[in-house]
Amino acid sequence: MIDPEEASAQAEDGFRRMWAELLPVGRHGGSGGYRRHAWTAADAECRAWFEEQARARGLAYEVDGNGNQWAWSGDPAAGGAVVTGSHLDSVPDGGAFDGPLGVVSAFAALDLLREHDATGSRPLGIVNFGDEEGARFGVACVGSRLMTGVLDPGRARALTDDGGVSLATAMERAGRDPSALGRDEERLSRIAAFVELHVEQGRNLGEAPIGVASAIWPHGRWRFDFHGQANHAGTTRMEDRRDPMPVFAAAVLDAQERARRAGALATFGKVAVEPNGTNAIASRVTAWLDSRAADPGVLDALVAEITRASGAEVTRESYTPVVDFDGPLRDRLAGLLGGAPVLPTGAGHDAGILASAVPTAMLFVRNPTGVSHSPEEQAERADCLAGVAALARVLEDLLTDPVSESLAR
Amino acid sequence: MIDPEEASAQAEDGFRRMWAELLPVGRHGGSGGYRRHAWTAADAECRAWFEEQARARGLAYEVDGNGNQWAWSGDPAAGGAVVTGSHLDSVPDGGAFDGPLGVVSAFAALDLLREHDATGSRPLGIVNFGDEEGARFGVACVGSRLMTGVLDPGRARALTDDGGVSLATAMERAGRDPSALGRDEERLSRIAAFVELHVEQGRNLGEAPIGVASAIWPHGRWRFDFHGQANHAGTTRMEDRRDPMPVFAAAVLDAQERARRAGALATFGKVAVEPNGTNAIASRVTAWLDSRAADPGVLDALVAEITRASGAEVTRESYTPVVDFDGPLRDRLAGLLGGAPVLPTGAGHDAGILASAVPTAMLFVRNPTGVSHSPEEQAERADCLAGVAALARVLEDLLTDPVSESLAR
Repeated sequence: MIDPEEASAQAEDGFRRMWAELLPVGRHGGSGGYRRHAWTAADAECRAWFEEQARARGLAYEVDGNGNQWAWSGDPAAGGAVVTGSHLDSVPDGGAFDGPLGVVSAFAALDLLREHDATGSRPLGIVNFGDEEGARFGVACVGSRLMTGVLDPGRARALTDDGGVSLATAMERAGRDPSALGRDEERLSRIAAFVELHVEQGRNLGEAPIGVASAIWPHGRWRFDFHGQANHAGTTRMEDRRDPMPVFAAAVLDAQERARRAGALATFGKVAVEPNGTNAIASRVTAWLDSRAADPGVLDALVAEITRASGAEVTRESYTPVVDFDGPLRDRLAGLLGGAPVLPTGAGHDAGILASAVPTAMLFVRNPTGVSHSPEEQAERADCLAGVAALARVLEDLLTDPVSESLAR
Repeated sequence: MIDPEEASAQAEDGFRRMWAELLPVGRHGGSGGYRRHAWTAADAECRAWFEEQARARGLAYEVDGNGNQWAWSGDPAAGGAVVTGSHLDSVPDGGAFDGPLGVVSAFAALDLLREHDATGSRPLGIVNFGDEEGARFGVACVGSRLMTGVLDPGRARALTDDGGVSLATAMERAGRDPSALGRDEERLSRIAAFVELHVEQGRNLGEAPIGVASAIWPHGRWRFDFHGQANHAGTTRMEDRRDPMPVFAAAVLDAQERARRAGALATFGKVAVEPNGTNAIASRVTAWLDSRAADPGVLDALVAEITRASGAEVTRESYTPVVDFDGPLRDRLAGLLGGAPVLPTGAGHDAGILASAVPTAMLFVRNPTGVSHSPEEQAERADCLAGVAALARVLEDLLTDPVSESLAR
C-alpha cells in the first residue's frame, strides 16, 4: 500500500520537472498571469505537452470527438476504468494551479503506481478536458458538457469569441473536426469512476493539506444589457441623458448588497461598453453576472431580484444545478485519506459535469491565501506533493477493486 | 454681395455630391456609426477625398509637418490669409456631421465665392485638421495642438492606441514623418482669421438655423484607476473581496450626482476591466472621466471632489482652459448673419485651440435632436445649405477686407 509520506518524497523530482515544463506556457509577461484560452496557440502548446507525457510513458493517446485528450494505461475497451485528470486552459490572467495541478498530479500519481507495481486490474485513464474555463467562448466546461450531452453540439459550434470567431472555426483551425461534437456514450460507458484533483479556491482547508469535495454550489452566468443613447459628453445636459453607465453602476452596488444579505455570491467581472469613447456617453453597457449560492432556491431568488432591480435586458448564458458528489465514493476517499475534511465549493469543475454520468469525486489541495483565478494563486509544494500521494493512494485502491464488482455504489 | 437664400440653392448640387462621396467612408455596417480614427484606412480614404477636392478645384495642396491637410486659393505666402475648415475623423461610432460638415461646407463655400467672383484679395485656405477627436490616442485636437505648440511633439509621438501602437508608428505607417511634428510658426503667421463651421451639439439654436460661438467651456479628461485583487468569483466570500467594480460603480453615481448639483457635466464613457473574465473578480477597473463646466473654478472643484470620493488613482490626461472667441470677429459674424444667436458650447474644437494663436470664430449649424457623437446625429439639409451660404457670406466679407489692415482686432 502506498505510504503517503514516502510517496510525497518519491514524487518530487517528476512533479518538479513537469511543473517547470508547463510554467512558461501561455504566461503573459506583463501581468504574470496565464492566458491559455481554448484553441489558441498557448492551448496547443499545453496539449502538445500532454501528448508528450502520454507517449513518454507508453500510454495509448487519443483525442475524442469533443477535443478532450486521453492517455490510457491498460485497455480502455475492457471497461470498468478509473479516470483522473483536470484541464490545462485558464481564465484571462489566471494562476498556474487551477487545472494543471490535476493533470500534472495525474501523471505523477501514475508514475508512483508503477513504481509501487500498484496499477491494479482496471484500466487507468488520464484526461485533459478541453475549454474548462469558458474564457474564450463564454460557456464553461465545454469539453465535459459535450461529452455528457449537457451542451448541445449545434449550440457549442455557434459560440463565438470576442473577435467573432466561432468555436467550430477555432477547432477547425486547431486541426479538430467540429462535426464530431456530441455525447460520447462509448467513452462514458467505459468509466467506473472519475476523480479530479484540484487546487482549493477558498481558504477552507485550514490545517489540512488535502480535502474531499462534498458538493458544488449551483451557479450560472447572466448577460445584462443596459441600453442607452450615445451622445456627446460635452454638450448633453445631465438631465437630458439616457446614459446606461449609472444604471449599470447601480446594478453593481445592488447585486453586491443583495448577495451579502443572502450569504451568496454575485460578481460583475466582465464589462463591454459601446462605443467606449472618452467623450461619448455610452449607447450600451453589457456586463456579465456570475452568481452562486449553496441553495438553488436562494440563487434563483437572488438573480431574479438583481434582474428586476437592474432595468437591464437579461439573458441566462449558462446554469449549472447543484452537484452532490457520489456519497459512497466520497466517504471511501475520505476514509482512505485518514478522515480528510469533506467540504463544498462554489467553483464549477469538469467533475461537476461528469457527476451526472459516472460516479465522481474530487480531491482538493490546500490554498494558503484563498486567491484563485489570479496570477497570485498559490499552493505550497509540500501540499502539491501530498496531493499526488493522496491521488495515488486513492487510485491504487480503486484500481485494485475487482472489475467484476460495481465500484462502491 | 452673396444673398443667403439664393446661395443656399446654388450650393445644393455641389454639397449633395460631396456629401454622398463621404457618406460611406468608415461607416460600420453593424452600428451605422463612423469609425474614422486617426491614421487608419478609413482616415486615409477621407484624406484622399480631401486631396481630390483640392486638386479638382486647382487649389494648391499641402500636408504640414503635423499631418494637417491644406488647400489654398491664392498664395498663402502672401500672408493675411482667411482659413476655414474642420476635421474628417470621428469618435467610435460617431455621426456623419461632426467634422465633415465643416470641411464639405468649406469647399462648397469656395465654389459659391468663385461663382460670385467674390474671392477677394486675401488668400483663402481650407484645412482638415488631423486627429481632432482623439479617439485612437486619447488626446483630442492633436493636429491643431501640435501646430500651435500646445502639445509637446515628444509626448505626442509617444501616445499609444489600445493595441500599443504609438502615434509615431501610426503616422509612419500612413507615410508621414513623425519627426516633423511641432509648432508651425510659418503657417500660423500667414493666418489673419480662422473660421470653423460645425454642427451644434446640443439643442441650443431653437428656431435659428445658424449661430455664432461665444466660448468653449473648460474641459478635460482624467483616467481613474481602481485597484483591487483578482480572485475567483465562485469561491471568494463577498466580505473577503478586494473588488474594484463596486468602487468604480460608486464613483459613477457620485460623479453624476455632483455634476448635476454643480450644473456641470461629468461622464464615464470609456471603461477597461482587467482581466475582464466572467468568473473572475476584477484586479483593476480603469475608467475615463470627461468633465466640463461653464466656469473653470466649478470644474476644478467638481473634479477634485469626484477624485477624493472615488478612492481611485487619478491621472489628468488632458485639460483645455476656457476659450473666449475673438470678440470683434464674433460680433462681426453675428452682424453679417442678421443677428444670429451667439452661444457657448461644451464641446472642444480645433477652433478652440487655434484661438490661442489667431483671431478665430465658429459658426454652428442647428442640431434638431441635440444628439451628437452617435450614429443618430442629424442636421437638416436646408440648415446645412444655410450654413454653406452663411460661411460664404462671412468669407466674402473677410476676404475683401484690405490685407494691409489687421482683421477686426
